[in-house]
Amino acid sequence: MRQLILTALTGIGEVRRGADLARLLAGALAANGLTLETGDVLVVAQKIVSKAEGRRALLAEVEPSAHAVELARIVLKDPRLVELILRESREVLRAKPNVLIVEHRLGFVMASAGVDQSNLPLSEDGRAALLLPEDPDASARRIRDGLQALLGAAAGVVINDSFGRAWRNGVSGIAIGIAGVPGLIDLRGSPDREGRPLEVTQVAAADELAAAASLLMGQADESVPAVLARGFPYAGREGSVQELLRSRAEDLFR
Amino acid sequence: MRQLILTALTGIGEVRRGADLARLLAGALAANGLTLETGDVLVVAQKIVSKAEGRRALLAEVEPSAHAVELARIVLKDPRLVELILRESREVLRAKPNVLIVEHRLGFVMASAGVDQSNLPLSEDGRAALLLPEDPDASARRIRDGLQALLGAAAGVVINDSFGRAWRNGVSGIAIGIAGVPGLIDLRGSPDREGRPLEVTQVAAADELAAAASLLMGQADESVPAVLARGFPYAGREGSVQELLRSRAEDLFR
Repeated sequence: MRQLILTALTGIGEVRRGADLARLLAGALAANGLTLETGDVLVVAQKIVSKAEGRRALLAEVEPSAHAVELARIVLKDPRLVELILRESREVLRAKPNVLIVEHRLGFVMASAGVDQSNLPLSEDGRAALLLPEDPDASARRIRDGLQALLGAAAGVVINDSFGRAWRNGVSGIAIGIAGVPGLIDLRGSPDREGRPLEVTQVAAADELAAAASLLMGQADESVPAVLARGFPYAGREGSVQELLRSRAEDLFR
Repeated sequence: MRQLILTALTGIGEVRRGADLARLLAGALAANGLTLETGDVLVVAQKIVSKAEGRRALLAEVEPSAHAVELARIVLKDPRLVELILRESREVLRAKPNVLIVEHRLGFVMASAGVDQSNLPLSEDGRAALLLPEDPDASARRIRDGLQALLGAAAGVVINDSFGRAWRNGVSGIAIGIAGVPGLIDLRGSPDREGRPLEVTQVAAADELAAAASLLMGQADESVPAVLARGFPYAGREGSVQELLRSRAEDLFR
């Protein structure tokens, strides 16, 4: 029986700067009565990766540029938050009240460069914001290697986040960093059942898995920051999230 | 333990025009040793819904308009195929060699209006193409009602397809019709753990489930045209795929 089984990992609690995520995840697997097997994939929420990596910025320490102040008037956001977003971005694609769509320095087209103020504990130093990990593929590899060292299983890791989409309402889970998992499955050249080449050729498998896990993570309730996926059909192939990013030259929608 | 379990339904075989999909799916559940429970969701591939509904067009019977002939030169496709795409569309958004992005008459922004030539048996009458169902929400409701009549369980139904995305490579599973499942989960007003309102407010739950099931369906191998999902956290709420379509006025990327 071909099955994909996703299990929520609960009990991880608040993740602090410097936390060893592989160790936390290994502990959560055990606490949930789960083992990690070769071929499994752990989907880990971006927020806990960013927190462990200390990707927190205090708004009080940010000096907004003139451009940020100007843009903040358009998008109706705190100029210091806009400054952080601009520092994380290569290009602003769209700006209107409450919406700031950018190309993140890592290549993701996304709202607010992933700079997020929700679910951050209010610090004694005032309001803070959380940035995406510096290099999410590297973060995924570190977690994968740590899990292998601790548990002996060659598992894949997907770091996911929730992105808005063009043309569709609502956010959906998406991969921002991967290790031991392919970004794209290439079906180019596979004939269909009549022997004709398929027109649809590449499947964004890592994004589909990120979306699946996102269903168990919820949004307001941060108590499920990781999901164990068993039965992912493409585990074990190596990949990078870069595969998933359409090059600017091929991009028809900017 | 919070789990989402997706199981491939095999053995459905070639679906013919007029087929009773609820009956076929009930048979496949039994043949796979599965029961249908209230709260389950069946994800059904668009192709078998279109086939059952007879949404097949023979290219030999299509007379391309002057506009279709002109557009076919740009996109390097058969003018009769382009004519079918235009008949299924409200608007052409982008046209370049091998790419024709339209707004489908149902509101979906997608490649080639979903008109698909792969995995269609070559007919004696020549080349054929498959169109999307006339009204996929209605198709989903018919399947849902049929399953309830046959098996007594109030299950949800999602009809999925694979769409390309702006900015990202690869196709991903997406919902084109739903019944007994919400399109969007609305988290507006739910405070985060510090009591601040969340900025990200709506989750495209039906699309996430469609993507999850797509992982088990594959692309070239059509032997898995349906997936049983158990543990979908939002089953039982009613919805329409229209919830998922961003209105033209709010769309920043056309």
